[in-house]
Amino acid sequence: MPGSSNTNRQGWPQDVGIIAMEVYFPSQYVEQSQLEAFDGVSAGKYTIGLGQSKMGFCSDREDINSLCLTVTQKLMERNKLSYNEIGRLEVGTETLIDKSKSTKTVIMQLFKESGNSDLEGVDNTNACYGGTAALLNSINWVESSAWDGRYALVVCGDIAIYASGNARCTGGAGAVAMLIGSNAPLVFDRGVRSSHMEHAYDFYKPDMSSEYPVVDGKLSIQCYLHALDKCFERFTTKAMAAGLRPNNSTLDMGDAFCFHAPYGKLVQKSFARILLNDFLRDGNPDFKGRYAGLEAFKDINLEDTYFDKSVETATMQASKDLFEKKTRPSLLISNQVGNMYTPSVYAGLASYISSQSSSSIAGKRAILFSYGSGLSATMFSMRFSDNKTSGGALDNLVKSLSDLKDRLNARQCLAPVDFDSIMKLREQTHHLAPYTPVGSINVLAPDTWYVTEIDNMHRRKYECKSGSSVAAGDSTGVKQTSSQTGGRVNVATQS
Amino acid sequence: MPGSSNTNRQGWPQDVGIIAMEVYFPSQYVEQSQLEAFDGVSAGKYTIGLGQSKMGFCSDREDINSLCLTVTQKLMERNKLSYNEIGRLEVGTETLIDKSKSTKTVIMQLFKESGNSDLEGVDNTNACYGGTAALLNSINWVESSAWDGRYALVVCGDIAIYASGNARCTGGAGAVAMLIGSNAPLVFDRGVRSSHMEHAYDFYKPDMSSEYPVVDGKLSIQCYLHALDKCFERFTTKAMAAGLRPNNSTLDMGDAFCFHAPYGKLVQKSFARILLNDFLRDGNPDFKGRYAGLEAFKDINLEDTYFDKSVETATMQASKDLFEKKTRPSLLISNQVGNMYTPSVYAGLASYISSQSSSSIAGKRAILFSYGSGLSATMFSMRFSDNKTSGGALDNLVKSLSDLKDRLNARQCLAPVDFDSIMKLREQTHHLAPYTPVGSINVLAPDTWYVTEIDNMHRRKYECKSGSSVAAGDSTGVKQTSSQTGGRVNVATQS
Repeated sequence: MPGSSNTNRQGWPQDVGIIAMEVYFPSQYVEQSQLEAFDGVSAGKYTIGLGQSKMGFCSDREDINSLCLTVTQKLMERNKLSYNEIGRLEVGTETLIDKSKSTKTVIMQLFKESGNSDLEGVDNTNACYGGTAALLNSINWVESSAWDGRYALVVCGDIAIYASGNARCTGGAGAVAMLIGSNAPLVFDRGVRSSHMEHAYDFYKPDMSSEYPVVDGKLSIQCYLHALDKCFERFTTKAMAAGLRPNNSTLDMGDAFCFHAPYGKLVQKSFARILLNDFLRDGNPDFKGRYAGLEAFKDINLEDTYFDKSVETATMQASKDLFEKKTRPSLLISNQVGNMYTPSVYAGLASYISSQSSSSIAGKRAILFSYGSGLSATMFSMRFSDNKTSGGALDNLVKSLSDLKDRLNARQCLAPVDFDSIMKLREQTHHLAPYTPVGSINVLAPDTWYVTEIDNMHRRKYECKSGSSVAAGDSTGVKQTSSQTGGRVNVATQS
Repeated sequence: MPGSSNTNRQGWPQDVGIIAMEVYFPSQYVEQSQLEAFDGVSAGKYTIGLGQSKMGFCSDREDINSLCLTVTQKLMERNKLSYNEIGRLEVGTETLIDKSKSTKTVIMQLFKESGNSDLEGVDNTNACYGGTAALLNSINWVESSAWDGRYALVVCGDIAIYASGNARCTGGAGAVAMLIGSNAPLVFDRGVRSSHMEHAYDFYKPDMSSEYPVVDGKLSIQCYLHALDKCFERFTTKAMAAGLRPNNSTLDMGDAFCFHAPYGKLVQKSFARILLNDFLRDGNPDFKGRYAGLEAFKDINLEDTYFDKSVETATMQASKDLFEKKTRPSLLISNQVGNMYTPSVYAGLASYISSQSSSSIAGKRAILFSYGSGLSATMFSMRFSDNKTSGGALDNLVKSLSDLKDRLNARQCLAPVDFDSIMKLREQTHHLAPYTPVGSINVLAPDTWYVTEIDNMHRRKYECKSGSSVAAGDSTGVKQTSSQTGGRVNVATQS
């Protein structure tokens, strides 16, 4: 048990936050430079213009349920956890394959053998923000009277694919699982998290039969940057009240800044915008130091600058060195896999952690900006524990993510023409029933869950590819078949 | 402000629970007895067999967003609340019209004028359970360090419709909004809520382009009753530990029992099953009193009895009087409107409250069972305040629901043939874009939001029908047009 129950407690448990993280991404990718040639666009459009190097993708063997099964089991095994130690499980996703049945209930198959089914939480939906909703709900649960001392498990995953054309290169896929509890090595700051929620049709998925979104590209950038400004303003006000903002600078408050990352270049612009916001609040800006080159912009209105190239260029120049230090390391997975949607900002956090040692990261603060179109956005901060003891909680968290680069390098590269065929197959077979996927199982990494069959009632069956496990957990190498509820099928009366 | 901030507090706020409720149901209904004749089934099949009298339905003028806009605005106006007093807003629904954009963000249009956009929470999805997930999240939030003293608003809504045939009579539609905070007149019991979550394909919606579910009728009943048994077992164990279960009976612990209600007859069977569970745990059952007629069943296994007619008949007989007292009043809306999906169990709670006066309800305890296929289920309990002062919080809650019967009686009855035409129109136009709804606006109740247009990009516009308001709120009688984010539409790069 990670902690004692709240039942007789005064106040909240100590150090509530993230105890462990697991990241899963597809075993295949396409080179963005090759995709530029294949798409017939100018060299550098995707790689330099968007800041993307590789893009991960799934064949018809993987769906949102299999991604979440894989990342959940990997987290459990790597951390040698029993399924009885989990008291809450919720999911964030926008890759819906059913309007009613949640991915959470599919993951419950992993819990079957343990007999543990007393776990609150279902699926959270709002574009790329669902994982953050699940995470904040879980933090609240640990602080509530309902907490029974067990861990919460937050799982977010998505398959981001676009119709062929100029947006396809901004796809990606993956899943992140996070273990939440008290006495965590990565602790949520209290009283500072700040949201901005608004009605917008910037990116949405009204065609329920398609995997592709409808996107208003320009509006979506404007919505993202506006939400960032609003969250910054509220977060900064709360951080000042909490005594967490030094030197009249929110930029100085964070050692790491992780953003929801549709593509790298937007994140770099967003980091520059943090500096711009700090600047506009600064009564006595240092034009010889941090704010050099910004003299002309002292009286600008934020809402006029979303597409102002001169402001963008000047603030990106002024923030360049800080960006390299505080944000670039968090873009590893974004650069190598693409946009994961709900897991994106957490893949960014994991990337940042994987760039550090427990010694270098101890005591540091990360500020996260989560954005989901539609729109929902929250800015919040977390602080890494000061305890860098080898084998301690922080050390375990850092070490568990140290294999990220090796795992990225172990993937298989496919030519754009083969990637395109796989996308075509997904498009043609999406929501078909009955359907038996044809994608290669060999190419999947060990311990990956995959779809074996979709029957004529759309019921999906999954298996786990046996192989060397990420840790010496109980189910290492054991071929698991998801239990399937059968039964006579007739149309009747229930929900 | 409903309460002070948690920031410097020891422990949790007092009396966290439901402060106000609002129920919305469609203005039109069909008589189940007439539907029996129209469908060519034997008289009594729907009315006696299922226990349903009337079924509400929506034309193409209403969708999930409009239902939630209507019930939210009604709750705000009836309780004379400012939109700045809300600090959290989340939605539960399984009536998805977009895979990505949440209904929560559409409701944010009502908040626009207030400038308040710092509200956590998105949409919760798992069949009929999403509203309960939203409610429990909101209770946790009020108890967490993130609570800033403002109210949480929980909105659940659904349009439940089935393909023509023997399941169509189990449809319904509606929405419920609940205001959550401290010092509430209906207080959540702490430490007792109990869940059962499991993978099942009992009722689900894998055909994303259709409004109709896939249902395994027999399996869905088995799943519901099994989840009830599991939740009963855990809830009872926790209630005993909390000293809340008197007389060795969970049935005696609750003055009211509200169930998720697909149809009345299943609820009656479920109430009987509570008695059966109590009975099987009773070391010394009173066969001359409560358990008369159950002698033969002392050694049965619960899992063998889901479709055992003799057990069902005996337990329904033994629990008949208690059912009439403790559960029948909660079936008013279920009987008159049908299955609302996510709002169902809360429409049950509202129905129960509307059957009482503040004097008769003070100090009583309600036990709720929420079920969503797939599956997720939770049992929890709440206690009504002892303070029955006229004009007090409890009195306000009770009085605000006292018009339910009048509102149900004010609806318009349509002939089955006209109902059938409206269902056909929904089926043919579901997800069409562009589309202009043709349903009558005249038939809608005052202050109902409705769809005016779906443009070629699937963007939906809504207006509110002006008229006498439910209360003297600021926006009474003012025709409101939802703000619409326009902008050039091009496919690009975001989420």
